[in-house]
Amino acid sequence: MTAVPRNKTQNYATPYPQEHTEPMIELHLTGILGTKITVHVKDEDEMLRVMRQYGRRGWTSGEIPAGGLILPLSMADTFDWSLIGAREFTNSEGEKSVYHKGQVYKRRELEEVDTKKLKLPRIVKYSRGARPTDPEHLKEGEESVRYVTLITFRGNGRALEAFQNPEKVAEQQQNQNP
Amino acid sequence: MTAVPRNKTQNYATPYPQEHTEPMIELHLTGILGTKITVHVKDEDEMLRVMRQYGRRGWTSGEIPAGGLILPLSMADTFDWSLIGAREFTNSEGEKSVYHKGQVYKRRELEEVDTKKLKLPRIVKYSRGARPTDPEHLKEGEESVRYVTLITFRGNGRALEAFQNPEKVAEQQQNQNP
Amino acid sequence: MTAVPRNKTQNYATPYPQEHTEPMIELHLTGILGTKITVHVKDEDEMLRVMRQYGRRGWTSGEIPAGGLILPLSMADTFDWSLIGAREFTNSEGEKSVYHKGQVYKRRELEEVDTKKLKLPRIVKYSRGARPTDPEHLKEGEESVRYVTLITFRGNGRALEAFQNPEKVAEQQQNQNP
Amino acid sequence: MTAVPRNKTQNYATPYPQEHTEPMIELHLTGILGTKITVHVKDEDEMLRVMRQYGRRGWTSGEIPAGGLILPLSMADTFDWSLIGAREFTNSEGEKSVYHKGQVYKRRELEEVDTKKLKLPRIVKYSRGARPTDPEHLKEGEESVRYVTLITFRGNGRALEAFQNPEKVAEQQQNQNP
Amino acid sequence: MTAVPRNKTQNYATPYPQEHTEPMIELHLTGILGTKITVHVKDEDEMLRVMRQYGRRGWTSGEIPAGGLILPLSMADTFDWSLIGAREFTNSEGEKSVYHKGQVYKRRELEEVDTKKLKLPRIVKYSRGARPTDPEHLKEGEESVRYVTLITFRGNGRALEAFQNPEKVAEQQQNQNP
Repeated sequence: MTAVPRNKTQNYATPYPQEHTEPMIELHLTGILGTKITVHVKDEDEMLRVMRQYGRRGWTSGEIPAGGLILPLSMADTFDWSLIGAREFTNSEGEKSVYHKGQVYKRRELEEVDTKKLKLPRIVKYSRGARPTDPEHLKEGEESVRYVTLITFRGNGRALEAFQNPEKVAEQQQNQNP
Repeated sequence: MTAVPRNKTQNYATPYPQEHTEPMIELHLTGILGTKITVHVKDEDEMLRVMRQYGRRGWTSGEIPAGGLILPLSMADTFDWSLIGAREFTNSEGEKSVYHKGQVYKRRELEEVDTKKLKLPRIVKYSRGARPTDPEHLKEGEESVRYVTLITFRGNGRALEAFQNPEKVAEQQQNQNP
Repeated sequence: MTAVPRNKTQNYATPYPQEHTEPMIELHLTGILGTKITVHVKDEDEMLRVMRQYGRRGWTSGEIPAGGLILPLSMADTFDWSLIGAREFTNSEGEKSVYHKGQVYKRRELEEVDTKKLKLPRIVKYSRGARPTDPEHLKEGEESVRYVTLITFRGNGRALEAFQNPEKVAEQQQNQNP
Repeated sequence: MTAVPRNKTQNYATPYPQEHTEPMIELHLTGILGTKITVHVKDEDEMLRVMRQYGRRGWTSGEIPAGGLILPLSMADTFDWSLIGAREFTNSEGEKSVYHKGQVYKRRELEEVDTKKLKLPRIVKYSRGARPTDPEHLKEGEESVRYVTLITFRGNGRALEAFQNPEKVAEQQQNQNP
Repeated sequence: MTAVPRNKTQNYATPYPQEHTEPMIELHLTGILGTKITVHVKDEDEMLRVMRQYGRRGWTSGEIPAGGLILPLSMADTFDWSLIGAREFTNSEGEKSVYHKGQVYKRRELEEVDTKKLKLPRIVKYSRGARPTDPEHLKEGEESVRYVTLITFRGNGRALEAFQNPEKVAEQQQNQNP
């Protein structure tokens, strides 16, 4: 695995520079019946608000890329799932899970390894077992244990503010500064 | 199979919050000749009305995802098929069937199993035998019995009001409160 | 093969209910060089007129679905081929053929079989031999005789008036009422 | 191979009937970095002018269909390559070639065969050797000599005026009427 | 490998002729969550500015074609990576690298070979090892060493001014004229 260089995602962070943003953006969305629509928003703030609003009812924009999304590790607990039409819940065994487009993904945490022999960074990912109807190139892992990844949180990049859930951020800060 | 957690689809339900909805939505549709068009509607109410109007003549919006749609079990008898360009009928053997984009899907009911050994929830699905021209990743089941699923009704989620057929809902309520 | 129930396609027929039709429709077209354009039309009547006008020069809208289009048998002699950018002709052996996107499809008629042992409905289809560049899932038939279907006319559905060629309909009626 | 009937492409020819053409057309283009844009033009004349203008800088509209484009043989020397974002040149061995989306296609001429035993029409095509990154269904020929076709000029159809290079047409006419 | 003829990409160069450019262009973009939007710009200058502005935050327009982008060798050190949503960095081993859509591509330089036996031009490319989730047709090389190419700089074409980073061009010129 190629190591992700420190701060690489930093420049992708918000706040968005508004001075050059175009007055109209068309946002393309897909509903839970497969319905395809386009909505017109006036700027990126409104785009994010509409993504959240529709996302809470399962609408998505575009496709999750093969191999899953990649975001900085610092967002593992504050990512706003509604932006991708997903929804967090805790399953009956108490495992943190996410519901996205009819599928359930479970949280897995790969702890940091820092020995003389091996150095591996901490990674948090949400994945599920592969299904027969998954396209072949989405399936990862060995033949006996195939899985599909929704999102991987890794690397030292700064959190992308626009993609965070403000309530979770506040909660996190309160926990850190009691 | 991963169990679907109770109430998971609840938040996707209508009524739609109108306060943030954009004034114009473009709905993308495909006709029975493959024709691709976009129609402009003023809000989600009009979007659903236009989907039903076109859907009754076989128009669809977007694609049915691989593995089929997933809706709460409580909608198995009240789903409005016109929203996906489909049409219910009873075949010559008296089986409940749905006609969608040139194909016939039959209703199958998997009853609840609740014994000490095995617990399986009730599921209603509409599926058909696989055809040679079906893309490989749509086909489910063993090599000898391959099939394609249009829709699965499962889980304890609340019915999504906007996707129901009002006449069927009324009929259902009348049967329950005679 | 699943039998197509009587009258199943009936509801897809014109005339189109105009009362709910949106004032603007965008029609997406592909030219014979692969060119992609979108044209704006004011209603479905204009949409069909523009589809015919462009279709006579080989433009198409959307894709022919895998397995080919399916229309009622009653349209086998009156379908307006310009709606899908196709063109009828009789080849040098006197066979009815259709030219569509660089390929020639020949008409095949499967006559009705109605014996004690076997009941098969009459079917008219336009197909061609498969080519190496056809995507695998479009190819039907045995390994030795692979073919690709453009359109199948089958079932007792009523003719879809909007998709017929008025001249052919008039000709047909004149032949039936001499 | 199915013979291409005489005059089959004749009806696709220009001049375009202007009376029914819509006032606005959106042309969808892809740049050499993969960039996707849509430009608005007022009619088909402007569409063709914009296609040439962008095409000279490598922009394309839509995709070349699998198996390549098919145009009448009479256009083999007058086709305007800018319409598909391509560019003619003569390589260092003096072979007529075309540069299209990062690939070089060479001209091959299959002369007419007209003997008692065999009748084959004259064909001009531009093709290149297949590459590992070509999708499987684009590759033609035997396992040992796989190739990809950009365009085939064949059949007796009349030249499509709108797709010709006016300078080449003038040059051709001067050569024929000295 | 087919040699790229001298100056072949020359005509694709800027400055863009403004006289025929349409007043409105719609630019289609994809965000790092997969989000699909369309923004309206008034001309190609604004299009490039918006591509850079969004690209710095990881937005891309369209897809990298299979086999990767191809640009003239003269741009290997001055290409503006923000135009494709990529970002340059030097990894911990001091290797020049590029970050694009969650993947890291390393710079490889194939020096010119000019002996009696063999003539190979200088090539600069950015590639990475193939991953299981890469679609098969993107993978190049032998079974044991599969890789995916983002971009290849090769051939004697003139640099495309519009796609360069002005700061790097200035820096390069300063180095050449001290």
